[in-house]
Amino acid sequence: MSSNLSRPLVTAPAETAVLALLLAEGPLSRVELARRTGLSSTAVTKAARPLIDDGYLYELPPERTAPGAGRPVNPLAVVPDREFFVGVKISIDQVFGAVCDLRAGIRATAVRPLDACTPEAAAALVGELVDELLDADPAFRDGTRHLGVAMNGDVDRDSGTVRRSGLLGWRDVPLADLLTAATGLAVTVENDVRALTVAEHWFGEGVGTGYFALVTIGSGIGSALVVNGRLLTGAYGVAGEVGHICVDPAGPRCRCGAHGCVEAIASTDAILADVRDLTANPDLTLDEVVGLARDGRPAARERFARAGHAIGVGIATLVNVIGPERVVVSGEAVDAYDLLGRPIQDAYAAHAFGAASRCPLSLRPLPWEDWARGGAAVAIQALFPQDAPTAAAITVG
Amino acid sequence: MSSNLSRPLVTAPAETAVLALLLAEGPLSRVELARRTGLSSTAVTKAARPLIDDGYLYELPPERTAPGAGRPVNPLAVVPDREFFVGVKISIDQVFGAVCDLRAGIRATAVRPLDACTPEAAAALVGELVDELLDADPAFRDGTRHLGVAMNGDVDRDSGTVRRSGLLGWRDVPLADLLTAATGLAVTVENDVRALTVAEHWFGEGVGTGYFALVTIGSGIGSALVVNGRLLTGAYGVAGEVGHICVDPAGPRCRCGAHGCVEAIASTDAILADVRDLTANPDLTLDEVVGLARDGRPAARERFARAGHAIGVGIATLVNVIGPERVVVSGEAVDAYDLLGRPIQDAYAAHAFGAASRCPLSLRPLPWEDWARGGAAVAIQALFPQDAPTAAAITVG
Repeated sequence: MSSNLSRPLVTAPAETAVLALLLAEGPLSRVELARRTGLSSTAVTKAARPLIDDGYLYELPPERTAPGAGRPVNPLAVVPDREFFVGVKISIDQVFGAVCDLRAGIRATAVRPLDACTPEAAAALVGELVDELLDADPAFRDGTRHLGVAMNGDVDRDSGTVRRSGLLGWRDVPLADLLTAATGLAVTVENDVRALTVAEHWFGEGVGTGYFALVTIGSGIGSALVVNGRLLTGAYGVAGEVGHICVDPAGPRCRCGAHGCVEAIASTDAILADVRDLTANPDLTLDEVVGLARDGRPAARERFARAGHAIGVGIATLVNVIGPERVVVSGEAVDAYDLLGRPIQDAYAAHAFGAASRCPLSLRPLPWEDWARGGAAVAIQALFPQDAPTAAAITVG
Repeated sequence: MSSNLSRPLVTAPAETAVLALLLAEGPLSRVELARRTGLSSTAVTKAARPLIDDGYLYELPPERTAPGAGRPVNPLAVVPDREFFVGVKISIDQVFGAVCDLRAGIRATAVRPLDACTPEAAAALVGELVDELLDADPAFRDGTRHLGVAMNGDVDRDSGTVRRSGLLGWRDVPLADLLTAATGLAVTVENDVRALTVAEHWFGEGVGTGYFALVTIGSGIGSALVVNGRLLTGAYGVAGEVGHICVDPAGPRCRCGAHGCVEAIASTDAILADVRDLTANPDLTLDEVVGLARDGRPAARERFARAGHAIGVGIATLVNVIGPERVVVSGEAVDAYDLLGRPIQDAYAAHAFGAASRCPLSLRPLPWEDWARGGAAVAIQALFPQDAPTAAAITVG
């Protein structure tokens, strides 16, 4: 986190563990919290007290879990409206925003066109967008301290700097500082695929998993991985590059310079370019190519099958190397799921090794709000000390 | 660890951190230990005291690190002979053994042929081999409590059970119990490639790295990965399967059933079979094939180049996915390094993505003693609580 405007809400390991579990999994009794965290019941009660006093947690009415199960318990739960978080996704020509509550529930959204893709223009636009979002409800204005930003590229979350974004053409941009100046909020910046993975791991299909992978497919192919409850960053800042796994040494040259990368075969740009060539129609749009494939035109249909096969082999490789508990595949191109889904699943099944094939693969579309929510999720993470384990890591181990 | 014969030597986090650092890195001053572990100097002194009293650590004579650098310091160091560990590697037709000291230095070795590859025969033979090794020096007999076993297959270290070893044809063998009965020692069992990786991460080229990968090449292609200082095990027990990364969808069928796996192209078995076919000489040995390649016979030479290319692409994939700090490539086939090395390095360089290409790749032979030493290394690990971080994890993160 680059900004000193917000400090972690919790620092003690016991408070961290209790809040993380309640955020991810919803109401839990103190007994259950003690069991899951390995803390004593007394330690759980002590850890919860300041969070109750601050209004982050509350006690639900007493419930008996089973007839004759002893004295009634009051489960603890998060107060979702205690604090709000703004998430934004900066793309090359638009900025998407969302206000989320403490459990990453989306409460308001907004989108604006970005005329000039410069850091200054983007910062000014984010300032306006945040104002619009916080004006939607007085509770948002009062209850928001933190903005999380998701964007393409190599982002250093610690310093809030965009080291390099090929898509946006930015290099060494101190984005957190620019955005704190523009909004008055504490700012966390993260790579967009990693931010989405945080949202999914803390608040979505990844809840409770120690090993988790998310793959995005569209004009690029990206992924991010959670290992032992933490986002994998790699010793040199590179990890989870499923788009640059080589699946065919005789394949086309990729923009990275290598041959046969998943991205060179399966990005929507690659599909579009090939079908334009094959049909000798350089004006085709991606929607039209999808239409041709759905109409059964072999050139288009087979091209999607080839892309799906490359993605499925790439995901099998991820799974054989990392061994995640589950994989979520998402992205703009999942709109063409009817064309991609079967070849992805078939190639995955054929190449997943042994017991790794038990790892379920789910595909689903990715609305733009989810990108913005990814930004909010990394802002929620800033409530915790930097290296705090997630709920999954706490309970897994 | 399956056996209750030995309990961890250290359990408190401070003691664990101090001992792990000294084991991996050699003598360090208390000031340096405090800096690296984040403990106070007082806490370091307190943690070291019982280990000094037990004879595991000692104080070196005082040294001044620089003129005028203040009062002299007494670095702390491990007493290598305080305890010994037997490591064995069980292969299909031989059992290799080594006695190692606390810092995994090999002090004695032995090897015996295994006539019948059954768990009972192997256990009896390990019993004899351990006796022979411990007889070599009275200090070994007195100072050894723990045996570590490295072998092919899917091994559950916690229960000491070999779930499945395809190579040895074993399934659900309670090996640790069998070997404790045969030797009277506490026993830890681990997959051989993982054990070798532990040895290399704690006592070899991996020291100080948080992310590390080891790849073995021979009649199989294996690898194991260290992430955040811990061995990656995967949610379903499968991880690091570099041998089953698909590098060529049109490639040969692998014994796992998929097509184009690294192992199907680059194992010594695959190379041997192909060169026998190409030369119409079904009696060629692997040594002869290596000889043909060194003599410049194209069929043999190109076959090694193809194998090296597949291995290099597979390693690049590992690196793009995990982002290790360094990769060590080892194994029987590294004897043919002059044939494999260049194509491995070239393919790796061509397919490593962006900054990941900064990850150095070193190749070196793997004498059989090192497999046995891997077993000893997992026995040394049993001095620590099960989930204790390594020295690298302590200082990295």
